[in-house]
Amino acid sequence: MHQQPIDKPQAAARHSDAQAGFVRLLDGRIAEHLSQLSPAPARLIEAARDAMSSGKRLRPYLLHLVAGGNADRNAVLDMAVALEMVHTASLIVDDLPSMDNAMMRRGRPTTHAAFGEATAILTAIGLLNHAISLANSLPDVGAVQRNALVAILSGVMGWQGLVAGQELDLHGFSDADGVQGGALERITRINALKTGALLCAAVEAGAILGGRADEERSLLRRFGEDLGQAFQIADDLADLLADSASIGKDIGKDGNKETYLAVFGVDEAFRRCRALLASADEVLVRVGLDPDPFRGMIDAIFNPMLDRASRPVPWSGAAS
Amino acid sequence: MHQQPIDKPQAAARHSDAQAGFVRLLDGRIAEHLSQLSPAPARLIEAARDAMSSGKRLRPYLLHLVAGGNADRNAVLDMAVALEMVHTASLIVDDLPSMDNAMMRRGRPTTHAAFGEATAILTAIGLLNHAISLANSLPDVGAVQRNALVAILSGVMGWQGLVAGQELDLHGFSDADGVQGGALERITRINALKTGALLCAAVEAGAILGGRADEERSLLRRFGEDLGQAFQIADDLADLLADSASIGKDIGKDGNKETYLAVFGVDEAFRRCRALLASADEVLVRVGLDPDPFRGMIDAIFNPMLDRASRPVPWSGAAS
Repeated sequence: MHQQPIDKPQAAARHSDAQAGFVRLLDGRIAEHLSQLSPAPARLIEAARDAMSSGKRLRPYLLHLVAGGNADRNAVLDMAVALEMVHTASLIVDDLPSMDNAMMRRGRPTTHAAFGEATAILTAIGLLNHAISLANSLPDVGAVQRNALVAILSGVMGWQGLVAGQELDLHGFSDADGVQGGALERITRINALKTGALLCAAVEAGAILGGRADEERSLLRRFGEDLGQAFQIADDLADLLADSASIGKDIGKDGNKETYLAVFGVDEAFRRCRALLASADEVLVRVGLDPDPFRGMIDAIFNPMLDRASRPVPWSGAAS
Repeated sequence: MHQQPIDKPQAAARHSDAQAGFVRLLDGRIAEHLSQLSPAPARLIEAARDAMSSGKRLRPYLLHLVAGGNADRNAVLDMAVALEMVHTASLIVDDLPSMDNAMMRRGRPTTHAAFGEATAILTAIGLLNHAISLANSLPDVGAVQRNALVAILSGVMGWQGLVAGQELDLHGFSDADGVQGGALERITRINALKTGALLCAAVEAGAILGGRADEERSLLRRFGEDLGQAFQIADDLADLLADSASIGKDIGKDGNKETYLAVFGVDEAFRRCRALLASADEVLVRVGLDPDPFRGMIDAIFNPMLDRASRPVPWSGAAS
């Protein structure tokens, strides 16, 4: 049943409240896990706390939505912490002096700016490793499922995940990398590795904890891939359009990078972003998930990035 | 039965041949795994190959010896590759410009010297992660055992393993770290985290793959701890006595660090090293392992480090 237009703001507020409620729970669980790190060196714990202290918690919330009400609540929360730890570690690494050399992130000093480069590297490795440890010891989850969740996290981080994406982003493709499709293939591949992989991990982990069939898991993977591509394009658009203060990170760092926006221009970037979001949305319907909370979350992420050009996400027009 | 003195060189040669045979098998398996990394970025694969190309393979061989003849041969080899990947990653990280800033290791340029700092960091993370992936998908090993092996690796790397050891080694203990026992406690803790942890992981993984009881696994853990402490003391002695060319790494880097040798002096360091090796040796006998191949391996490692002072390892005198 289509909602009446008059319900839209109420529905959006309800979804926003639900998301905020989950994020509060998650933040509590993150704090709990970090408080159990002792006897780890106090300085590392402080750096980890600082790095984990803010964030949109997009990946954890995606996991929670896909897992659904029948999944074990503690397992979902712990796996959500694991995903956020991997995400945070990847940001710490990306920001390092030898990589993007960013001093600000989310409006605050980056980990190496606040704690020094060595501690930042060790904190990132500690977080990646802790994520594995959480997935590997999820309460009330069988050994085979834990194996599957560890495999997902290790796939995200590794040679064919975040590490590969960062290497290609920094140093480009070599002849031995066998990329023949030109700019679009290079851009899509780096985006898939750097952004899509972790979104895919979130929804696939949700599918596992929600007891979904392999076929649905594969479909949800496409949702993650599409959302990842859309997110990167929107982020590049925001980077172009916004000033540093309003998004709280260094801008201009990506000036020389090959992006969808730089290659295909603003209009095509908006068109492609909307098409990807529509494709992702279609998956939700096909696997029988209620799309509304996902749409609420995606609106909240994408609208601030896209609203300067008055081009709303695709379903906003259709649903009203 | 005590061997006759006349048999000692023959026995040593036999153990040395057995170790060399295992290392050849292992090197082949390492090459096989690295050749399967594509489509990872070619530059990362090259850096990983370079970093993994040499080494004493001490931890893999320990795993192999403890696992024994009844363990699944392929599982032992894959787990051995995983341990060597963790060890290699920890060396790459230790050598980084923001850490020990070492340009040479094992007589060759360190990974960041050869491939740049960013690629070195990403290679280390890739190797750590690949190790987890190997343990998590060992052939013909049940899900529960794989869980246990992943837990071992993740314990080694993490906040209470290599990452913690490196942080404390670089920046020392803060008041919040609650170390009250003075120099000996600080030195022992850092050695346990940086060197002992991975040796313990090797013997504990061997105990799991060899189907040993928990009690034996705990005893073997003490073997790893003792060997780790002994190894670090011997390494410091070698650092003091040797010149750079003969051990193939930068020397003098540890000049200002608090070490057992620096605090207690050469004679006490030798005494302590021998006592630790004797304690480790005792464990082998208690768990019913043939100590000879272990002794052969330990002789081969420690004698070059200790022979300048003509102080042989403890059992050399007793057995002849």
